[in-house]
Amino acid sequence: MPSMLIKNCSWLLTQNPNRDILRDHSIMIDDGKIIEIGSAVKAADVVVDGAGKIVLPGLINTHTHLSMVLLRGYADDMRLQDWLQKKIWPVEVRLTPDACYQGALLGCAEMIMSGTTTFIDMYFNMEDVARAVKESGLRALLSYGIIDLFDSGKAKAEQEKSRKFFEYVRSLETPRIQFALGPHAPYTCSPETLLWAREFAEKNRVINHIHIAETRKEQADSQKQHGARVVEYLDKIGALSSRMLAAHCVWLTKSEVTILAKAGVKVAHCPVSNMKLASGGVTPLPEMFDAGIPVGLGTDGAASNNSLDMFDTMKVCALLHKAHRWDPTVLDAQKTLDLATIEGARALGIQDEVGSIEVGKKADIIMLDLHSPNLNPIHAKETIISDLVYSASPANVDTTIVDGQPLMVNRKLLTMDLRQTIQNAAKVANELVHP
Amino acid sequence: MPSMLIKNCSWLLTQNPNRDILRDHSIMIDDGKIIEIGSAVKAADVVVDGAGKIVLPGLINTHTHLSMVLLRGYADDMRLQDWLQKKIWPVEVRLTPDACYQGALLGCAEMIMSGTTTFIDMYFNMEDVARAVKESGLRALLSYGIIDLFDSGKAKAEQEKSRKFFEYVRSLETPRIQFALGPHAPYTCSPETLLWAREFAEKNRVINHIHIAETRKEQADSQKQHGARVVEYLDKIGALSSRMLAAHCVWLTKSEVTILAKAGVKVAHCPVSNMKLASGGVTPLPEMFDAGIPVGLGTDGAASNNSLDMFDTMKVCALLHKAHRWDPTVLDAQKTLDLATIEGARALGIQDEVGSIEVGKKADIIMLDLHSPNLNPIHAKETIISDLVYSASPANVDTTIVDGQPLMVNRKLLTMDLRQTIQNAAKVANELVHP
Repeated sequence: MPSMLIKNCSWLLTQNPNRDILRDHSIMIDDGKIIEIGSAVKAADVVVDGAGKIVLPGLINTHTHLSMVLLRGYADDMRLQDWLQKKIWPVEVRLTPDACYQGALLGCAEMIMSGTTTFIDMYFNMEDVARAVKESGLRALLSYGIIDLFDSGKAKAEQEKSRKFFEYVRSLETPRIQFALGPHAPYTCSPETLLWAREFAEKNRVINHIHIAETRKEQADSQKQHGARVVEYLDKIGALSSRMLAAHCVWLTKSEVTILAKAGVKVAHCPVSNMKLASGGVTPLPEMFDAGIPVGLGTDGAASNNSLDMFDTMKVCALLHKAHRWDPTVLDAQKTLDLATIEGARALGIQDEVGSIEVGKKADIIMLDLHSPNLNPIHAKETIISDLVYSASPANVDTTIVDGQPLMVNRKLLTMDLRQTIQNAAKVANELVHP
Repeated sequence: MPSMLIKNCSWLLTQNPNRDILRDHSIMIDDGKIIEIGSAVKAADVVVDGAGKIVLPGLINTHTHLSMVLLRGYADDMRLQDWLQKKIWPVEVRLTPDACYQGALLGCAEMIMSGTTTFIDMYFNMEDVARAVKESGLRALLSYGIIDLFDSGKAKAEQEKSRKFFEYVRSLETPRIQFALGPHAPYTCSPETLLWAREFAEKNRVINHIHIAETRKEQADSQKQHGARVVEYLDKIGALSSRMLAAHCVWLTKSEVTILAKAGVKVAHCPVSNMKLASGGVTPLPEMFDAGIPVGLGTDGAASNNSLDMFDTMKVCALLHKAHRWDPTVLDAQKTLDLATIEGARALGIQDEVGSIEVGKKADIIMLDLHSPNLNPIHAKETIISDLVYSASPANVDTTIVDGQPLMVNRKLLTMDLRQTIQNAAKVANELVHP
């Protein structure tokens, strides 16, 4: 792999433990890793100019369903059950491997162009999604969405599918793509499957990705069926562990937050999707922070967002919690940026590899062009953080680098043909919706 | 003025009363006005290609303080009173005419690059703001922010300043720039000034732009001082009229909504700013719609947003109301787009001139490039509306046209030197913050 120098970065946001912001520093990259950060400029195979740029770690999306970009805008402004039953599920049964591949490619293009470098996915036809991600150059944790509907035969088959996908990911032999478990939710998976997933995740040291407490109805149903709230039920059957990444967690009591924290569970917070589907509640972030729960941000799938734009998710996240708590000091800009970078990495258990720009870490880096009215003027270091969270948008992302490989430079995608990707996605989406 | 043809628009969102979406139509523009919409292609001095584009009316920002872009990111995540008293006001007393001019230019650049074609402003040194707007090519209603603090001497001086600015705008002899009154708020302006503004607005047929009920404190103080809620007080003293554009209106009772509707008052809703400053309440849009109040969307100033991005404001608006009402059917994509276009025009009293693409209207038009992953795939006409509200961002805006004059083409600003604008704004912002 060629060495790379990102030279003279005007503003280098390390997101290291001190949250150092360096002026006019250069980043030396070799074999996909950051080997030096300093003010000296050295020789390298590839040189990228950081002058006039804000340079920061790539954003980390901790919950999405990538191929659902195919259903972007297909059905909006509907009640959740109508949306799922009348619109989403009837289409999803027609999903083909090729559709998931083409959708995943389009989703990867969108993520690269909006500054995301790592994401965790849960969907179907995951071999095909993995293929797309491999081509795109992005980093991902991929989980097959297990739904057994409490049928033990189906449970066995679903577990087998996951096991096969685990072998498939291993066969790809690329550390950029990791396997994750994906039991869909406590209301779609039997206790047997949930426990199997817990064991499999422990044994193979992988993330166990699940949806928890997205709606009030889920909590009410849990009370009826199990005589316990969702997290209490999961705790009782022994399904929780520090390998678990729980998406949503909108409707939790403080005691459920405590249980999650004790078990070491991580949370993926999806403010845009929760608001769009009118979940009503708000994920109790301050309580989670107090309890020491690692929290990342996710867009959720494009069918309920409808973009994969992590800048949008950061801003909406900060706004939502300020408004909800009647307190503008809740979730300041730095903390919000943390959630989308180093804390997101922690939620995925990969904080030693990515999430900050530090020597020894993988070179997952994005660059924003300061030559844009919405990022000006700059008063102090803190302005940059504010600008990133409250004013930046995909238009500002100029360069996206993963593992030291440039995926986009000057807003030009390098790892795929954008026109072809859009056309192919249009074709499969049309076949899906108008069979 | 040269004639213009926007030919073969792939998707033409007219926002006419039928909300017609036309395929492969062309727009013929002469003397700044739309003179024909059809499928035939005709000769024109300037030809712009609409193939591969979404073409729609320019977005309308019904509340901002343009020159405050100078304070973007300067102070965030603070309580409103701390923010104003410790950060904003001490800086604002140092505002120079040149600072307001340079700030306004930067703000205009940001608006053009994010698809806004019309806005209404309230701030200081408005002659200088007007100069910047004139150069930028944007359409604006400009108001000088009157604050008399219940001092009758100051009231006279402030009224005089407004009168002088009225004469100044008249002297510009450009219909693109209109004068508006700007009494800041019921708690900063005496009844005399509020009544003077009402009379002046009626007599000269201009908008009377004011802040109303932005915070709980404002309502509590009004109860204490006047024994009445803010809108009741304004009604009692006779300050309301159909010329009034009331920004915020966050904390209102249903009976106050009824009073506003009866008086014909219009509302500028600023969801992002209200959430960021943690106003807590939510402007009661469904009740306003039921009462027939024209409502537009505003970004508010960049010091409390922190962008002037109306795409962001549309999305956050729809999300906020769905989440607040626990109902995803509240404020669907079409209605939200209406607020940012034709309803915004209605709120400013200029719905006969702009806000839709119709023969006889001024050619204020924006074009979004479909060659972007976040706007694909397209399933049906409705997808486009959804995409615009839930997925589009400034990155997608390719061309911005006002009065038939292109202000940006292929994301290149045509009416100003962006690099110089950014540099000048940086200089005055630095002098302002570090005197």
